[in-house]
Amino acid sequence: MSLLIVGTTALDSIKTPYAENPRLLGGSASHAAVAASFFSPVRLVGGVGEDFPAKYLNLYRRHGIDLAGLQHLPGKTFHWSGEYEVNMNNRRTLATELGVIEQFQPALPAAWRATPFVLLANIAPALQGQVLDQLTRPRFVVADTMDLWLNIALKDLLKLIRRVDALVLNDHEARQLAQEDNIIAALPKIHKLGPRYVIVKKGEHGSILSAPHGLFLAPAYPLRKVVDPTGAGDSFVGGLMGYLASTRGSIERNLRRAILHGSVVASFCCEGFGLNRTDKVTRAAVNTRVRELEKLARY
Amino acid sequence: MSLLIVGTTALDSIKTPYAENPRLLGGSASHAAVAASFFSPVRLVGGVGEDFPAKYLNLYRRHGIDLAGLQHLPGKTFHWSGEYEVNMNNRRTLATELGVIEQFQPALPAAWRATPFVLLANIAPALQGQVLDQLTRPRFVVADTMDLWLNIALKDLLKLIRRVDALVLNDHEARQLAQEDNIIAALPKIHKLGPRYVIVKKGEHGSILSAPHGLFLAPAYPLRKVVDPTGAGDSFVGGLMGYLASTRGSIERNLRRAILHGSVVASFCCEGFGLNRTDKVTRAAVNTRVRELEKLARY
Repeated sequence: MSLLIVGTTALDSIKTPYAENPRLLGGSASHAAVAASFFSPVRLVGGVGEDFPAKYLNLYRRHGIDLAGLQHLPGKTFHWSGEYEVNMNNRRTLATELGVIEQFQPALPAAWRATPFVLLANIAPALQGQVLDQLTRPRFVVADTMDLWLNIALKDLLKLIRRVDALVLNDHEARQLAQEDNIIAALPKIHKLGPRYVIVKKGEHGSILSAPHGLFLAPAYPLRKVVDPTGAGDSFVGGLMGYLASTRGSIERNLRRAILHGSVVASFCCEGFGLNRTDKVTRAAVNTRVRELEKLARY
Repeated sequence: MSLLIVGTTALDSIKTPYAENPRLLGGSASHAAVAASFFSPVRLVGGVGEDFPAKYLNLYRRHGIDLAGLQHLPGKTFHWSGEYEVNMNNRRTLATELGVIEQFQPALPAAWRATPFVLLANIAPALQGQVLDQLTRPRFVVADTMDLWLNIALKDLLKLIRRVDALVLNDHEARQLAQEDNIIAALPKIHKLGPRYVIVKKGEHGSILSAPHGLFLAPAYPLRKVVDPTGAGDSFVGGLMGYLASTRGSIERNLRRAILHGSVVASFCCEGFGLNRTDKVTRAAVNTRVRELEKLARY
C-alpha cells in the first residue's frame, strides 16, 4: 500500500574527521523516502527552492518516489551544515539556513488524502499537524521528531502526538519528554501522552518498541565503519514504514520485522555520505542483511 | 560440572542519590560466585581479613559455594567505597583500602586443580595468571578485567589474555584495549591478542559476543528501576559461566543462552544493594526472566 511522507527536503554540507561533502541531498523526508522506496510506493510532501539540483529530483524519481506533493518555492532550499567528531556520535551544527522551509505549507494532492500509511518525518510539529488535518482516516500514522521541537515547540508537539499511532524518538529525547532518566520507566509516561506505540532509537545499540502487548528489544546491524550517520534515524523510520506498508495483517506483529528492516536500511545509510550509499542499495541487499541480523540475534 | 572462580572478596560501602549502605558483601568473586551458584557447584578462591563478618561466610555457604580456597588472612578485608550519580551509570570511587588483597596469593586446594570451568573474575592480572599456573588443562577459561588493569598493569594483562579462551570487558575497555573507537572493528583486534571468544558488556544496552562462527548481539533484561549496579558485570559473567558449566556439547552454541542467563542474573543484582537482591533469587525466578527476555527479543 502507499506511504505518504512529509518532512524536510534539504541540502546538507557534512564534515567528518575524514572528509567534507558540500550540498548533498538530505533532509528527513529525503532519507525516509528513499529508505521506504525499497518496499512500498512513496508519496513525498515537501518544499524545495530554486537552487535544488535537478540531479536530486532524478534521484527521487529513480526510486519511484511520487513528487506530486513536492513544492518548488521561490528562494533557497533549506541548508544544514554540520561536523562530526572522531567517534561519529557527537555532532555540532555549523549553520542552519531555513530558506523556503520558513514559508512551506504542506498541501496534499486531493488523490493523496486517503493514503493509508503516513510518516510524519522530522519537521516542525505544526506542519506535521497540517498534514494530518488533510488526511481522511489513515490506517497508521507515525511521527518522528527531534530535540529542537522539544525545546522550542513542545506545546505543538504534545498536541500532535495525541493524534498519532506511533511516536519515534531517540533515547535522549525520550528521557527529556518523559522527564525520567530510565528509558524503560519513561515509556509508560510517553504512552500517556497519546501514542499506542513508542519506538526509542538508540543508534548503534538498536531500538526499543513499546507496544500494547509489550516490549521488543531490537538490535542494530553492526557496522565496522561509519562514514556519515546523518539521516540514519530518518532512514530507520522510513525503512520501517515502507516495510510496514508492504505487509498485511496485524500491525503489532509486523512492526517487529519492520524495525529490523529499518535498522538495515539505516546501516546502509551510515556507510556513505548523505544518500550516496542508500541510493545504490537493492531490495536483495536489504534482505541479505535482514537475514544476517536475524542470525546475529538468535540463540 | 564444577566452576572455579578467583577474584576479589570485599566489603563495599555504596552511596546512591537515594540511600547509603556501608560494608556490604562485595567484590568480583562474591558477585560472580553467587550468580554462578544458581546453575553449577562453585569453588571460590579469594582472601578475606579478620574483620570479614561471619554472616557473609554463611551467605556463601547458603549458596553451596565451596570455601576450601578462601584464605583468612591477618589484617583487614579489601574495602571499596563509591558513590553513584542520579543516572546510575556514572560512579566515582571515594576510597579503596586494599587490606589483605595486597598480600593475597591464590593457592588452589590440590583437588581443585582439575576443575573444568574457570572464571578469572576481576582482580590483578598477575593473580589471575597465578591461578592459571596451578590448573591442569581446564576445559574453558574466561577472564574478566577492568580499566584499572589496562592503565596500571597492561603488560600483565596482555600476557594473561594470551592464555584464556574468552575475555570479557566493557565497551570502554574494549575501545581502549584495541585503540579503536568502533566496537565492531575493535573485536578482531582483541582476538589477535589471544582469546577465541570476546564478550563486550554494554550495560543496559546488552552485550556482544564475538566467536569463531560470528557475532551474537544479546539484549539486556530491561529494568524500570536500578537500585545499585555494583557487581552487575561480575554477576553477568558469573551467571554466564555457571550456566555454561551446567551444559553439555558445543561451547559456542551454549554460550548464547549462557549470555542470556548472565544478563538475567545481572538484572537481579541491579535491583538491590550489593548482593541483597541476588541472595534471594531462585533458579525458577531466573528461568522466568530468561523466557521473558527471549520473548522480548523475538520477531
